Amino acid sequence: MTLIDGKAVSAQIKQEIAAEVEQIVAAGGKRPHLAAILVGHDGGSETYVANKVKACEACGFKSSLIRYEADVTEAELLAKVEELNQDADVDGFIVQLPLPKHISEQKVIEAIDYRKDVDGFHPINVGRLAIGLPCYVSATPNGIMELLRRYNIETSGKKCVVLGRSNIVGKPMATLMMQKTNPGDATVTVCHSHSKDLKKECREADIIIAAIGRPDFVTGDMVKEGAVVIDVGTTRVPDATKKSGFRLNGDVKFSEVAPKCSFITPVPGGVGPMTIVSLMKNTLLAGKKAIYQ
Amino acid sequence: MTLIDGKAVSAQIKQEIAAEVEQIVAAGGKRPHLAAILVGHDGGSETYVANKVKACEACGFKSSLIRYEADVTEAELLAKVEELNQDADVDGFIVQLPLPKHISEQKVIEAIDYRKDVDGFHPINVGRLAIGLPCYVSATPNGIMELLRRYNIETSGKKCVVLGRSNIVGKPMATLMMQKTNPGDATVTVCHSHSKDLKKECREADIIIAAIGRPDFVTGDMVKEGAVVIDVGTTRVPDATKKSGFRLNGDVKFSEVAPKCSFITPVPGGVGPMTIVSLMKNTLLAGKKAIYQ
Repeated sequence: MTLIDGKAVSAQIKQEIAAEVEQIVAAGGKRPHLAAILVGHDGGSETYVANKVKACEACGFKSSLIRYEADVTEAELLAKVEELNQDADVDGFIVQLPLPKHISEQKVIEAIDYRKDVDGFHPINVGRLAIGLPCYVSATPNGIMELLRRYNIETSGKKCVVLGRSNIVGKPMATLMMQKTNPGDATVTVCHSHSKDLKKECREADIIIAAIGRPDFVTGDMVKEGAVVIDVGTTRVPDATKKSGFRLNGDVKFSEVAPKCSFITPVPGGVGPMTIVSLMKNTLLAGKKAIYQ
Repeated sequence: MTLIDGKAVSAQIKQEIAAEVEQIVAAGGKRPHLAAILVGHDGGSETYVANKVKACEACGFKSSLIRYEADVTEAELLAKVEELNQDADVDGFIVQLPLPKHISEQKVIEAIDYRKDVDGFHPINVGRLAIGLPCYVSATPNGIMELLRRYNIETSGKKCVVLGRSNIVGKPMATLMMQKTNPGDATVTVCHSHSKDLKKECREADIIIAAIGRPDFVTGDMVKEGAVVIDVGTTRVPDATKKSGFRLNGDVKFSEVAPKCSFITPVPGGVGPMTIVSLMKNTLLAGKKAIYQ
């Protein structure tokens, strides 16, 4: 069993990005600039944004953090989005989700200029992903593809089961795994809350990508010998032994599943660090205007 | 076994559309107007476009056919697309594919105003489909959803195997079948040329949607008793007994498969007529500005 070390891979990619940024800057080019809008003080969001800012530093990017209290109006937020769309110094930006209930997330996402949408949530980027055109790929699926690539995991013709059909993980993940690419070319099955045959599908899978947000959902009896298991889950579970009072728990019951796997990602330290590094890769692409002019 | 009669359903939908159009016009509204651009004289394309014009008449739409010879330049075609984008009388339009090799189909598709893209091929419509937002759904998948709906075929929790991963059928079909909708909520597997376990997947499927363009590919041994089989294939196969010299052959070996099915679509007369009627439905939506302003 090989433990997929997302922390090590992401550290290496950040070094690669930093080296490329220094080359760009040395050649007189512009340092990539990522802006983030954070609304309110949700604990998870604070952590994610702080980690993104830290990753920007590691990559040699300029970063800006724009904060609003939870009572910001939708109009104010949309005005800021438009300002960032127009700001030539900002190469890409994100609006950290979730947003307070009085603000339409979809409206905000669609207001972002797709050429700066480094989260890859805008319909144009989602559509281009489906068609197989160059685009900003949403961060978690992109990070998983990078892990499969760097660990030389064979996917062509394999049975890949994706658990979950969310817009930001399950569906784009399925799309990427079925494309005529490497990694890709897999036989892809998407299972979800309505699936009657979920366990059976999992037992037959060569690759399982679990993204349903239910701690320890994938148990040992659901995984065949030699499978590759990618755990996207990061549910906060109360844990008195931790200083924070909680631990991050994956969708996979690691102790049972790991011994059966050829490859498996741990939680934390698997997919999580790759998600942030994928955002950094999109920001580098934005800075270089590699996808859109 | 119930034969799904796409011809009858499509005739009924055309009547429904025509009735609604007459109401709109009687109330002083605008008659929907579909324009089609046809380049060259490909036999299949000529037939398709002629059928679309005929369907417009049946629905009470205004239709315009714009023809170019195969040597039209990409720039000329793009100029016409822009003209139709600007023409307030044209509610929706299509560019019949395939286009001659010297013209980029993708460039032409992306030049179409997504608000008039009644084929649903523009990245914005593809992306909105994936996210689950209102959009122009590509015609063949939309027609199949309509057949499932009108025949009250249960899809929730069922295992649905889609054969083929094209941008206009396989991928959007898979997306629609996995959405939180009815029809939908299925466990969806997409198989294709690289799939090692295609036959096994088919044998376990409650619903098979075949869209690979290989005549008689799905044989009796690949289908379980009681399955629903939707045949998207329409390959022209030489046939001396036909006046045209060919017949349309589906992806399914009907004689073997039909006896095992609970529901099956014939070729011709199954999915084909529904594809055109889906385009008509999109045109009606465009005329009513029901999706986009």
